[in-house]
Amino acid sequence: MRIALAQLNYHIGNFEGNLQKMLAAVEQARQQKADLICFGELSVCGYPPRDFLEFDDFIRQCNASVEALKTASRDIAIVVGTPVRNPVAAGKDLYNAACFLYEGAVLGVQHKALLPTYDIFDEYRYFEPATAFRTIVFKGKKIALSICEDIWNVGNENPLYTICPLDEMQDEQPDFILNLSASPFNYQHASTRIAVVQANVKRYGIPMFYANHTGAQTDIIFDGGSLVVSPDAQVFDEMPYFEECLRVYDLEEVQRGGRSQEQPKDKTKLIHDALLTGIRDYFGKLGFKKAILGLSGGIDSAVTAVLAAKALGAANVRVLLMPSQFSSEHSVNDALTLAHNLGIQYDLLPIQPMYAAFEAALKNQFWAQPFNVTEENIQARVRGTLLMAMSNKFGHILLNTTNKSEMAVGYGTLYGDMCGGISVLGDVYKTEVYELAAYLNKTTLSVTGAAGPIPKSSIEKPPSAELRPGQKDSDSLPPYDILDKVLYQYIECRQGPRELVAMGFEETLVKRVLRMVNINEFKREQAAPVLRVSSKGFGMGRRMPIVGKYLS
Amino acid sequence: MRIALAQLNYHIGNFEGNLQKMLAAVEQARQQKADLICFGELSVCGYPPRDFLEFDDFIRQCNASVEALKTASRDIAIVVGTPVRNPVAAGKDLYNAACFLYEGAVLGVQHKALLPTYDIFDEYRYFEPATAFRTIVFKGKKIALSICEDIWNVGNENPLYTICPLDEMQDEQPDFILNLSASPFNYQHASTRIAVVQANVKRYGIPMFYANHTGAQTDIIFDGGSLVVSPDAQVFDEMPYFEECLRVYDLEEVQRGGRSQEQPKDKTKLIHDALLTGIRDYFGKLGFKKAILGLSGGIDSAVTAVLAAKALGAANVRVLLMPSQFSSEHSVNDALTLAHNLGIQYDLLPIQPMYAAFEAALKNQFWAQPFNVTEENIQARVRGTLLMAMSNKFGHILLNTTNKSEMAVGYGTLYGDMCGGISVLGDVYKTEVYELAAYLNKTTLSVTGAAGPIPKSSIEKPPSAELRPGQKDSDSLPPYDILDKVLYQYIECRQGPRELVAMGFEETLVKRVLRMVNINEFKREQAAPVLRVSSKGFGMGRRMPIVGKYLS
Repeated sequence: MRIALAQLNYHIGNFEGNLQKMLAAVEQARQQKADLICFGELSVCGYPPRDFLEFDDFIRQCNASVEALKTASRDIAIVVGTPVRNPVAAGKDLYNAACFLYEGAVLGVQHKALLPTYDIFDEYRYFEPATAFRTIVFKGKKIALSICEDIWNVGNENPLYTICPLDEMQDEQPDFILNLSASPFNYQHASTRIAVVQANVKRYGIPMFYANHTGAQTDIIFDGGSLVVSPDAQVFDEMPYFEECLRVYDLEEVQRGGRSQEQPKDKTKLIHDALLTGIRDYFGKLGFKKAILGLSGGIDSAVTAVLAAKALGAANVRVLLMPSQFSSEHSVNDALTLAHNLGIQYDLLPIQPMYAAFEAALKNQFWAQPFNVTEENIQARVRGTLLMAMSNKFGHILLNTTNKSEMAVGYGTLYGDMCGGISVLGDVYKTEVYELAAYLNKTTLSVTGAAGPIPKSSIEKPPSAELRPGQKDSDSLPPYDILDKVLYQYIECRQGPRELVAMGFEETLVKRVLRMVNINEFKREQAAPVLRVSSKGFGMGRRMPIVGKYLS
Repeated sequence: MRIALAQLNYHIGNFEGNLQKMLAAVEQARQQKADLICFGELSVCGYPPRDFLEFDDFIRQCNASVEALKTASRDIAIVVGTPVRNPVAAGKDLYNAACFLYEGAVLGVQHKALLPTYDIFDEYRYFEPATAFRTIVFKGKKIALSICEDIWNVGNENPLYTICPLDEMQDEQPDFILNLSASPFNYQHASTRIAVVQANVKRYGIPMFYANHTGAQTDIIFDGGSLVVSPDAQVFDEMPYFEECLRVYDLEEVQRGGRSQEQPKDKTKLIHDALLTGIRDYFGKLGFKKAILGLSGGIDSAVTAVLAAKALGAANVRVLLMPSQFSSEHSVNDALTLAHNLGIQYDLLPIQPMYAAFEAALKNQFWAQPFNVTEENIQARVRGTLLMAMSNKFGHILLNTTNKSEMAVGYGTLYGDMCGGISVLGDVYKTEVYELAAYLNKTTLSVTGAAGPIPKSSIEKPPSAELRPGQKDSDSLPPYDILDKVLYQYIECRQGPRELVAMGFEETLVKRVLRMVNINEFKREQAAPVLRVSSKGFGMGRRMPIVGKYLS
């Protein structure tokens, strides 16, 4: 038996686009003599469809796509993910299902049992968990169908769940496992995923075929990495990350095993590739081509600009250099150098005239008030307004350049440097931004022939917002190497003040950092969606009260 | 037996504040010879605590509050809501629990079984559902303890659930039902709540005591309206809305019944009172006193200003009048009249100089480009920057004045008139804003002696953003009376295009409106939190993909 796995980049709600893509994959698989093709979880509608699932019309369109695929399944079986109605009145009225289509008929439907409801996931909001588990017989083979999380409770050892779907099918002695996934990327996830698939294979002693999504849906990025694991628990194949892929496998060859083919897993390269995918798909799926951003001469905007140029093409990226009276000369020079190295269009727009106009307008109100964060914010907001004006006039999307460390402690101006359609670095700590910069300089050509596009001084100078004379980030923040460690423990690992102090961090520092994180929830609430590359990014995956008074 | 219900305004994560409030209520109940006092759901930590629940430290602090209340329960039973650890390793590691404390000991703990996971609710994200149901015996009475949603599946007729917790206790023949709730307000909710409590009482033939929260947690507003319903299914008492209240009831009197005491339920008054609560608590819980907003002469900012003055006191509200060259003279006059009528501080800050500075700065880039929405947005963003500058300098919170109709169709400028810490009218359709204006003019005194603070012409003139010459909302939007009906059906009732056309709305209008709603998700993603007064507000209760391509 020949089994095709299709790792596709779906688009939420784009039924026609998703269907055409799947039909083309079916045709390709047919030409390669596949007996069966397997797509990802909820592939007809894309993942996550969120509250679109509450609309009858949306479910009707999902059904229509399944019908079209059923018609296309004359001589090849098609396994597709789709929401289906729960026929009984008790429980949620949808299932997250895998439909096995063959010869114009539905050979079987398996519902998902384990519904992730944590981090970015809300599946129990929509779906009823499966209670029945039965293999599907196709051309003499018994297939254990499963959906994503269903394989993540091996031997019932995951405390979140009380049932192990594949255990329930073991009496029927299945020949292999098919898994339809929509498993989002984070830079630690690919290894975990392989370990989980291997654990399943070891438990049941049969091969597993695992089809994931690739591509980004706003903040959530899918890395692909679809898997075939042989009964010897070796990775027979791992598909490439961040690209569409269709491959056909011979079941007997997979059975034999003895092959190990993993993709390389370098953290910085993974983050880099994920961010390119995130930028590309945000623009592509919204129907935009051109990006704009502000270039300060600092490292965050430099890294964002290089990523944008790589993702969209240098011709599609425009930058504004917007110095104020507090900008150092070297900042403007560093920004200019970067723009030249990338070969991107730039405009030099000093903000002094606008800043002066605001100062004059508020002269009476601000009489005898000292210069403070207000004037710093006015500068940032003038820049935001200039960027948005260019964006509005010429159809660019503004890229936000805030990094995760700043976003965590609220070191940014709402409606100023926090503007943007999508946050490129909002899930990348400052210390990781340096790693990205080094990686970009190693892997990106400069049109000027410079060793790398990002000037050395952007990387080496002490970080500064340059919103008042002589300002440095270190005036108001702990050193980034310490700050980032505290933030990682608090945000990714959910360690509280007691645990952080026990780890050796200084108590006053811990209190200060946690307080900064918590009192700035109101800013993050209005931030751009953040391309998620870690196991805990800001946004839907981290839900915090705004008026909360806790560690604040 | 004398039973006290405490309807309190908790503050998420403010353990010390919540505990002191509860201890004071215990003391008051004790003085009124109560045998038992009942607080709301998750009262130790406030509702919804969201991802704070993932921190061990947070749960430890909840436990500490329960310990303190246990100590205070020497001669009075205390029933309190708190998260408790699930002692077994299988399933989520928390329960949403009601602890029955008496004489320094825990007499019983009831877990919540029905975990709302829809709209603004995420309870299955954190909690394991209860499986055991047992009454608590106290002073010879058997008490059926239940938490909020547990009573919302009367006779198992709610399709969301498959168990009816109170049914499970009927074998023990309980004497009365205690329910600890955190049931958020919407203008239709109070009647529904009463009907549900009555349905339970009818089913079991015993009285029910129902304690709700009052007060707002950012966007989510609790209206109180705690209930006592007699076995005759009459409302023995309904506590007032939107205020703290402690009352002690004699069980025998409640048993006898024959009393019906409902609060009046006028939609516009309810919305009005909810918005005042929302404003007051957003400021109070963040530790702020003063509000600022822009006054355009239009009805939305007028209504917001009056609400702010009522919620915070006229002395705490400051407004900016920021006319452009496109503002009509009557707009400035209407704004001035309103400020005078309310007796609030105002500043007149024409935006022309800043606008001209932006125009000049972008002259080269915008060469030969026609005036379009870009220039409109610059005006809105200059205003946003002025408001935020005042807010930053003097410690105001900026109130957003966008209404629900505008927010739905994206008729507003991101980082411009969409700025603000909290959106006051973002869940109030334009047609409802008019109803609020009329209500405010009837119920609010003007310091100038005018008939009502809002000038007649702000109410009667055709709505306009005044961002280009002669502009009217009706140039780009359908009439609000039609638009709002389509939006209500789409947003609140989740009706799709087919259903809307079947209702008699014109097909091209339906498509146009739904498209406007869907393509503007990116703006709402960055909007201020919206005070929720309807059954479906923008924010956590409505989760939509941004790059989705559906009805768009």
